Amino acid sequence: MSDDKRPIDPWGSTLPADYETLMTEFGIEQMTNELVSAFPLTHRLLRRKVEFGHRDLWRIVESIKKNEAYAVMSGIKPTGDFHLGTMMTAEEIIFYQSLSDKSVAHYCIADLEALADNGIPLEESHEIAVGNVADLLALGLDARRAYVYKQSEEKVVQRLAFVFSTSVTFSTLEAIYGPKHIKYYFSALIQVGDIMLPQTEEHGGPKPVLVPVGIDQDPHIRLSRDIAKKFRLVPPSAVFHKLTRSLLGEEKMSKRNPMSMMTLSDNPKLAEKKIWSALTGGRGTVEEQRRLGGEPEKCVVFELMTNHFIEEDEELRKVYLECRTGARLCGDCKSQLADIVSKFLMKHQQKKEGLTDLARSMLEGRR
Amino acid sequence: MSDDKRPIDPWGSTLPADYETLMTEFGIEQMTNELVSAFPLTHRLLRRKVEFGHRDLWRIVESIKKNEAYAVMSGIKPTGDFHLGTMMTAEEIIFYQSLSDKSVAHYCIADLEALADNGIPLEESHEIAVGNVADLLALGLDARRAYVYKQSEEKVVQRLAFVFSTSVTFSTLEAIYGPKHIKYYFSALIQVGDIMLPQTEEHGGPKPVLVPVGIDQDPHIRLSRDIAKKFRLVPPSAVFHKLTRSLLGEEKMSKRNPMSMMTLSDNPKLAEKKIWSALTGGRGTVEEQRRLGGEPEKCVVFELMTNHFIEEDEELRKVYLECRTGARLCGDCKSQLADIVSKFLMKHQQKKEGLTDLARSMLEGRR
Repeated sequence: MSDDKRPIDPWGSTLPADYETLMTEFGIEQMTNELVSAFPLTHRLLRRKVEFGHRDLWRIVESIKKNEAYAVMSGIKPTGDFHLGTMMTAEEIIFYQSLSDKSVAHYCIADLEALADNGIPLEESHEIAVGNVADLLALGLDARRAYVYKQSEEKVVQRLAFVFSTSVTFSTLEAIYGPKHIKYYFSALIQVGDIMLPQTEEHGGPKPVLVPVGIDQDPHIRLSRDIAKKFRLVPPSAVFHKLTRSLLGEEKMSKRNPMSMMTLSDNPKLAEKKIWSALTGGRGTVEEQRRLGGEPEKCVVFELMTNHFIEEDEELRKVYLECRTGARLCGDCKSQLADIVSKFLMKHQQKKEGLTDLARSMLEGRR
Repeated sequence: MSDDKRPIDPWGSTLPADYETLMTEFGIEQMTNELVSAFPLTHRLLRRKVEFGHRDLWRIVESIKKNEAYAVMSGIKPTGDFHLGTMMTAEEIIFYQSLSDKSVAHYCIADLEALADNGIPLEESHEIAVGNVADLLALGLDARRAYVYKQSEEKVVQRLAFVFSTSVTFSTLEAIYGPKHIKYYFSALIQVGDIMLPQTEEHGGPKPVLVPVGIDQDPHIRLSRDIAKKFRLVPPSAVFHKLTRSLLGEEKMSKRNPMSMMTLSDNPKLAEKKIWSALTGGRGTVEEQRRLGGEPEKCVVFELMTNHFIEEDEELRKVYLECRTGARLCGDCKSQLADIVSKFLMKHQQKKEGLTDLARSMLEGRR
């Protein structure tokens, strides 16, 4: 690996400087309009190219067309409530699951990672996971075609990781992840196990698998594709979404800084406050903003509207143009978004409450 | 690590050139007469210093004296029948288990290693394992105080391996094992998980654990002791036995060369034949042997008598002296041993047959 092609760090917290460069370097394909419209349904994340790139997404298009089995898979480290970043992945799983009755959604609760990395005991992460799965259900996951499991209980993944370890060299791991503590390589092999699980005999054998991820997780995708070839499995497909920035705009939204993130369990009033202090693309003064217009490209509030909270393209375009031309000030946007978000949270939290029992039985039922 | 302190290879097949040097280098303690007689019962392997070294064996002596819990643990890769080498470990487990009613014997069926290293499917290794466990029972294992498990089914070991991986650096692994493919480090962490399993909450918490092993497995013991300190567990104890040579005397007995090993499933007639072609310490001619005496130290037949088949020390001493003085020829020894072995195998195989159902239920019962 040459110095100018530095590995992406799936465990880091910085935003990639330049998506384009990363895509070219690692051979990620751009999302095209043809591909967007090849699906039987549409989704704002696809239409707006928040899902900006992919690997072999056409495999899923083909499966849907031929009415053949495919899987969508992702997971979460159960260390806290769903935030907007984990919600985006959840929405993708739910969308791609909904496109065919031959689909299965796999969702891994990475409780061993929560234990090893964060010292969270399994009983504690179990309770957090119940909340996460209830969020997933409230967002629309079809429980009838979902396989939700905890790492600590899933023997098949452990078996896969063990077998895959025989086929990977240190130089491959170092080329993909950079030099790392062995725990990361260990964890990477287990994540490959998670990604391959839908293709095991226990789950009906080889099939296309779509993994919706941030581009920072691409190393796991590349390692999985590498290993798939060696074990005659279908190389997993991936769809890449832009990383969700923190409300203050500095880094990717993560549980490490609770004040700059929004969770689905936030009190709606608190959520409104967070929006009011979020980073915008506003100018120094009202006068300046009326004259020059705002900069929606830099604005976290506009990003939240685009990625999460405004469904109608026409409405979003209106916000964009009004901002650009100085007709709308940051207060207008914040007020509008605060209203949408607080209503969304109230409704979501109510739905979630009614689904907690189902979530618990999904997690505990297969023991 | 300096060049003169080369790591031992637990996956290799060569015999260590010099036990003494290894012991000094790695801080293994010598077996003393005091320690041998500190146990409430005696065993030929202890008395004859076939168990020539140990680490913290006194912990087990103490546990027995104080009537406190301890565990004995070992395991097998289920790739074939018990041979004399695996039988020796089994005998040690059974002996140390028998010394107290506070003991538990743990026995790991390393079916994931059989899958990853030897490509043996889990269903196939399961059947092999049923035979192995039946051998263990026929040799005298007390099933009431035994925990026998398959790697592929044991989630707690997987959890331990995952957690332990956070505390071990590559430089530690390289210092202990030498530079190796990542699968060996992966496997090493799982073996540490096996060794620590008896100390988990699920198994009653921290306690002394004795691992009877060949000195080639000492790297796993050292890594386990290193990790135990970091997780406030009792550093595992070990007792080291001499490696069982192949019948032809070149390398350690292993399943890789079936013609030079003896298994507990061998047809007694075949076993006799193998003994007749085993390496001895005999001289070039009868005349020479009568004049100079034989060399029992080099003789595999005498080793089999010492390690496995002659219980009475007085009888063994007689064989030794008669050989040394030229009063006894190799044919005499082979004839005597062939008779003992063929009777032993017949009796063992009969016992084993009656225990296969119990073995199967022990392996399948806890699913």
